[in-house]
Amino acid sequence: MTHKGIDMKRNAIVLVSGGLDSATCCAIARQEGFELFALSFSYGQRHGVELEAAQRVARFFSVKDHLVVSIDAPVFGASSLTSDTAVPKNRAIGGEGAEGSIPNTYVPARNTIFLAYALAYAETIASQDIFIGVNALDYSGYPDCRPKYLTAFAAMANLATKAGVEGKRMTIHAPLVALTKAQIVTKGTELGVDYGITHSCYDPSPEGLACGSCDSCVLRRKGFAEAGVQDPTSYALQNE
Amino acid sequence: MTHKGIDMKRNAIVLVSGGLDSATCCAIARQEGFELFALSFSYGQRHGVELEAAQRVARFFSVKDHLVVSIDAPVFGASSLTSDTAVPKNRAIGGEGAEGSIPNTYVPARNTIFLAYALAYAETIASQDIFIGVNALDYSGYPDCRPKYLTAFAAMANLATKAGVEGKRMTIHAPLVALTKAQIVTKGTELGVDYGITHSCYDPSPEGLACGSCDSCVLRRKGFAEAGVQDPTSYALQNE
Repeated sequence: MTHKGIDMKRNAIVLVSGGLDSATCCAIARQEGFELFALSFSYGQRHGVELEAAQRVARFFSVKDHLVVSIDAPVFGASSLTSDTAVPKNRAIGGEGAEGSIPNTYVPARNTIFLAYALAYAETIASQDIFIGVNALDYSGYPDCRPKYLTAFAAMANLATKAGVEGKRMTIHAPLVALTKAQIVTKGTELGVDYGITHSCYDPSPEGLACGSCDSCVLRRKGFAEAGVQDPTSYALQNE
Repeated sequence: MTHKGIDMKRNAIVLVSGGLDSATCCAIARQEGFELFALSFSYGQRHGVELEAAQRVARFFSVKDHLVVSIDAPVFGASSLTSDTAVPKNRAIGGEGAEGSIPNTYVPARNTIFLAYALAYAETIASQDIFIGVNALDYSGYPDCRPKYLTAFAAMANLATKAGVEGKRMTIHAPLVALTKAQIVTKGTELGVDYGITHSCYDPSPEGLACGSCDSCVLRRKGFAEAGVQDPTSYALQNE
């Protein structure tokens, strides 16, 4: 892997959930010559094992700093990811993500809160680049993963900040937005990502084992299968 | 004060800092017939007495609920409001807020984070209305108090949420945005606001007494004086 000169490196914030997408996002940002600052969130998610994965990913990519922000759970009260509602299993995943069918794993305004923190962090370290691993093809129906949402966020961000007033444009990088999960796996594998350290499952076992059947596991397994890459994940449920 | 029928009441989120502006904002939202849900933030600000004022304001307006969200301080590291940097005193306040002169009390992306939480809260309680007491005339140089910023936030918000996808438009109400501080005081006084319960100072004494000379105190004093309304505040410094 080649890097631009150390002195030329610009700082980038990378949102790191510890999943397959955010790990690939880190690899792409690093390849583009950025110095990485990881940002993760703790928000009472049942999948707390995510944070351990985020720390592994941050270490793997030798990030300059890793900020973990706690978000009060009551704000996110409505989602099955943060409550006792059942996580949907074995749903048909509509590849093109038809609008209007938003699953109950949707967390209100989640990416807006995440990106708002990223914006504050970016301004604090004089960064003009934020990487987020959202995906619009396999996006499972989340409105805040669509390109037009990200464009609107960037427009708002450039009016929100001191940097923006001074003419420094903020770029929201979403390098995975138009890729299939298989393409993401292929890309990350080319860039040397160790997917064994990542975690995608919405509903892991108490030991942290991926369930194999939630939306996130189904997409992940399908991605590895289609990419023809060995999936290093141990699933509780091994049906194919 | 007249209300629309109880059954007709729509829910509104009101950002409540406990200051003069947010109290006036509550009064306006209530007059417009909304059921109020207050949202306040604790972010390691030196002016922790703000939160006590926010609670007084929430009680005064009999809000339906009052959510206080903690925000991790490191994100906001760069501002004198959250660090040991000196708060500027007795600055000349440029009424029209020339762009490019942003004071060191500016907190990176603060209103973006606040509004992102408000958006999540709104979606959780099925509200389509957020009130924020920002002001573009006396705005002290903050980029995220400008009307064009608020317009961009609303555009982003309508793409971010499930409600937006379902065609429900989110409105960001900024009823004070074009008012002078004197006009705000006049308006709030007409609506029966007890400004004695509010707190504006950036740099209060350990006992919670307003300093009288920070930007916020200077604007407040000027507002009451110009409105010809008795200022109920006790200032540590009584120079006029």
